[in-house]
Formats: sequence, C-alpha cells, structure tokens
Amino acid sequence: MNRTQLLDQIKIKRSFLCVGLDTDINKIPHFLMEFEDPVFEFNRRIVEATKDLCVAYKPNIAFYESRGLKGWQSLQKTWEILPKECFTIADAKRGDIGNTADMYAKAFFNSEESGLGFDSITVAPYMGKDSIQPFLNYKDKWAIVLALTSNEGSKDFQNEENRDGLQLFERVIQKTNQWGSPENLMYVVGATRGDAFKVIRKHAPDNFLLVPGVGAQGGSLEDVCTYGMNRDCGLLVNSTRSIIYASSGADFAEKAREEALKLQQAMEKELIKAGII
Amino acid sequence: MNRTQLLDQIKIKRSFLCVGLDTDINKIPHFLMEFEDPVFEFNRRIVEATKDLCVAYKPNIAFYESRGLKGWQSLQKTWEILPKECFTIADAKRGDIGNTADMYAKAFFNSEESGLGFDSITVAPYMGKDSIQPFLNYKDKWAIVLALTSNEGSKDFQNEENRDGLQLFERVIQKTNQWGSPENLMYVVGATRGDAFKVIRKHAPDNFLLVPGVGAQGGSLEDVCTYGMNRDCGLLVNSTRSIIYASSGADFAEKAREEALKLQQAMEKELIKAGII
Repeated sequence: MNRTQLLDQIKIKRSFLCVGLDTDINKIPHFLMEFEDPVFEFNRRIVEATKDLCVAYKPNIAFYESRGLKGWQSLQKTWEILPKECFTIADAKRGDIGNTADMYAKAFFNSEESGLGFDSITVAPYMGKDSIQPFLNYKDKWAIVLALTSNEGSKDFQNEENRDGLQLFERVIQKTNQWGSPENLMYVVGATRGDAFKVIRKHAPDNFLLVPGVGAQGGSLEDVCTYGMNRDCGLLVNSTRSIIYASSGADFAEKAREEALKLQQAMEKELIKAGII
Repeated sequence: MNRTQLLDQIKIKRSFLCVGLDTDINKIPHFLMEFEDPVFEFNRRIVEATKDLCVAYKPNIAFYESRGLKGWQSLQKTWEILPKECFTIADAKRGDIGNTADMYAKAFFNSEESGLGFDSITVAPYMGKDSIQPFLNYKDKWAIVLALTSNEGSKDFQNEENRDGLQLFERVIQKTNQWGSPENLMYVVGATRGDAFKVIRKHAPDNFLLVPGVGAQGGSLEDVCTYGMNRDCGLLVNSTRSIIYASSGADFAEKAREEALKLQQAMEKELIKAGII
C-alpha cells in the first residue's frame, strides 16, 4: 500500500486507528478452544468486528512464534483474511546485516516465498543502514523504524546524548530518513511521552509515526494529536489490549467493537479539528 | 547449557568453533532437492560432518522464516538433531518490550511450547532492560547481546560517542552486564575489527564473545585471539559460508569438514599458546 492509498483510507474511515493483534492463546475466551485454530478464530472475529473502524492491523509476531509451527500457521491464516483496504504491519522488530535482512524482507513481504505479504514491518536500527535498506527496496512496502519506544527500558539507550546534545533516537531519525523517505519510512514513537513528539517532528515532519501505548499503556490520544499530528495526519495510533481483551466472554468481539468505536470517534474529532476531513 | 559445561566442551574438543547454519535453499547442492526437506537434509549432513570439530551451532533464523511454514519445519527438525553436547544459538536478533520478549523467550527456549529449545539467542539492545531481562530468567540459558557488529552499517550508530567519550557499544556492554553476568550474558563482536577487542575486554573481561566474520568476511583468527581471548578462552568464533558452502557438489559435507578441521587446528594452537589446554 502506498502513502496516497493510506491517506485516502484515513479520510474514508475518519480514523487512524491500528488494532494490535497480540493474541495470547491463554487470554482469549475459553469457548474458542473448541475451534481447530482458536487464535485464528479469535483474530477473525476481532477483524470482522473492527474492520470499518480502523485503517491498520498489527500482529505482534512474537505471540505467534511462541507457539512454533502452530503459531506460524495462525499468523498466515490471519494475514490472509486481513482486508485488502487495511494497512498491515508485521510487528517483528527485526534487524540484521544485509543478506539476512534480505531474508527477513522475504519472510514478511514476499507471500509467494513465505505465505506472508505484509505492507510493512517494524525494524530495529542498531545495526545501521544495511539492516534497513533491504526493506526499502520493495515497492509500496514500508520499514517502520524504532525511534522512541514507550517501555521502561527505552531510557537505557534511546536518550543517550551525543557530544552535540542529540539523543540517540534523534540521530536514528536523522540518519534513517536519509536512506528512505516519508513514502516508505515510518517511526515507532511511544504515546506515553507526549512532549517528545515535538522533538520527533523537528526531525521527521512528514513521516508517519506509529504510536503504541494509547489505552492500556496510559497515553493520551489528545496529547499525541496536539504534538504529533501533521497536515496529512501522519499518525497511526495503535491500541491492543483495551480493544482485543475488552471482554473475556462470548461478547468479546462486540465489546472490542465498542472500544474501537470510542477511539474512532475521538480520532474523527481530531481529524476535523485539524481540518483534514 | 551452563558456563562450566561450555568450558569443558572447549577443552574436550580443543576448539571454540561455532558453525553457522544460514542455509539458503538456493545455494545448497542441487541433488538435495530430491529429499522431502532439502534444507534439513543439508543441515543434517553438515552437522554429521562437523560435530566433533565445533562446540556450537548457530542457525540464522531469517533463512528459515523466509520460507514460512516449511522453513519453520526445517528449523525445528534441525534443532532436534543438534548434538546435546553442542551449545546451540538461535541467531534471531530479537528485541521488544517485556511481555513480548517473554514470548520470544518461549519461542526459542521453551521446546514444549514452541518445538525449539535453544541454549541461547542473539538479542538487540535498543529497547533496553525489559527487552533483555526475560531471556536471563531462564536457568542455563543465555542472551547474546549485539555490541559491535562486523557489517558496514555498524558504524552508523554503534560508534556514536556520548559526552563522556564512550561509544554506544561500550555503554551497551556496561549497562547490560549489570543485568546479567558472565554466566548468562555474551556479546556479539565482529571479527573484522581486531583492535576493538581491547576496548570490549575493558568492559567485559569475563564474558564470552560470539565472533562472526572469520573466514568469508575476512577477519583473522589470530587477531581475534590476541586481543579477545581471556583466561577461560571466552570466545566462540563463528564461521558460516567458508564451511557450509565449501563445495556446491556431492562432496559438500566432506569439504565442509576439511574447512572446519583447518579452523579447529588453528584454534587448538591458540588454546595451547594461551595455556588453556
């Protein structure tokens, strides 16, 4: 999916919501265990219930890999039913040298080789240019680079200042943005650090930002929009647990829809306020 | 496998060789295509031909993931036949927030859940403590943290100096070594940068270093030993392409053994020189 198509979807759906599919077989409603593939069945119902309210889906690959072959099968079946008009993100945080990064690009972008053809993948910057470039070589595919994350450990290295007073996450954005463009490069920025968006936008005025941490992790949508929105919107705000685990009963999909709807409505207001729709 | 067992293996085999299993289905001898699982058959023969000469095997996970379900199957079958006395490394370069890192730990350490039970995994430090801690919570399992890699892009961020003149890779070693110990924490250090081992050993005198880049990537074993060996050896030197692709014919396993033997013999000399055996 290219940038224009993504922008169109945001306007059509009046939403920039991304639904995280961090599906843990130990947390899904018990009655699903009767199905051949409970994780897939859960995802199928969540997608069915939310697909008109969100513009993106983001399966967290670890949750599938942790179940080995069975998990990989659930992931592949889930990818197959993700609606074509939705932007798809493999949240994989991969990062390795050039020839290995080529293989990871195949794994997540080339469905003929691997059975998976996501629009984008999250990547770690530590190993530098040749670990990111292979993902940028695919037409209409995206690399979403870790910049400033929302977890406790993000402070360990991401805020390290260099001699010019620039923090590591700033250097990451500056450098990686030279390798790609706002047409194929996004950044992960945690929602729990609203004021940091000002610094991020200084270095990445036009890139989309993928923002986890709204909802269960405590970030405020309003703060994110105040500091992070650009004239195209430029945000994909992810919510996972508050949507997919809104209920642990038979009504889980219905409750997931209710939560997604609340977020979509709040996003619609922000899009109107910013004059985007 | 714990540290004592690994040290014993080094003395018994008179070797600190790790064989990389970056098995690319497009590069293995053509006659193997007749087998049901050519990648597994290739790995099986490489392992059979080298297992008395090396102390560790390191499958590069990307090469398996790139083939989706089939690849994951080859990986699982390969893990099952790795000799119990060899140290096994999932070269996966994972790194994500705490609850996700838990899932990656399950994926590679907990064979009951995932079908894979490696002794160790390579991890990326960018997301900090909670992205590494879950791997350190497993008894006799190891996290191998990316410190200074051997690829071109390693210079992009790893050498960034902070205000105290410390490079990022130095800060990574300093900090992560507070979270674990030489009993469960190793570092990836590229062999192409011999003199850098001096700096590394200042911060990590006792940890094992996993050293890729000897052989095809041009690093010298002698340099690595001069600057990187400690009193316990403290090195696992990886070689991949020069061993597994030593021949593209029916004699590939035999030629792989010849190359592995050359390295083992050179390593034996270094171990004797250092008074370890």
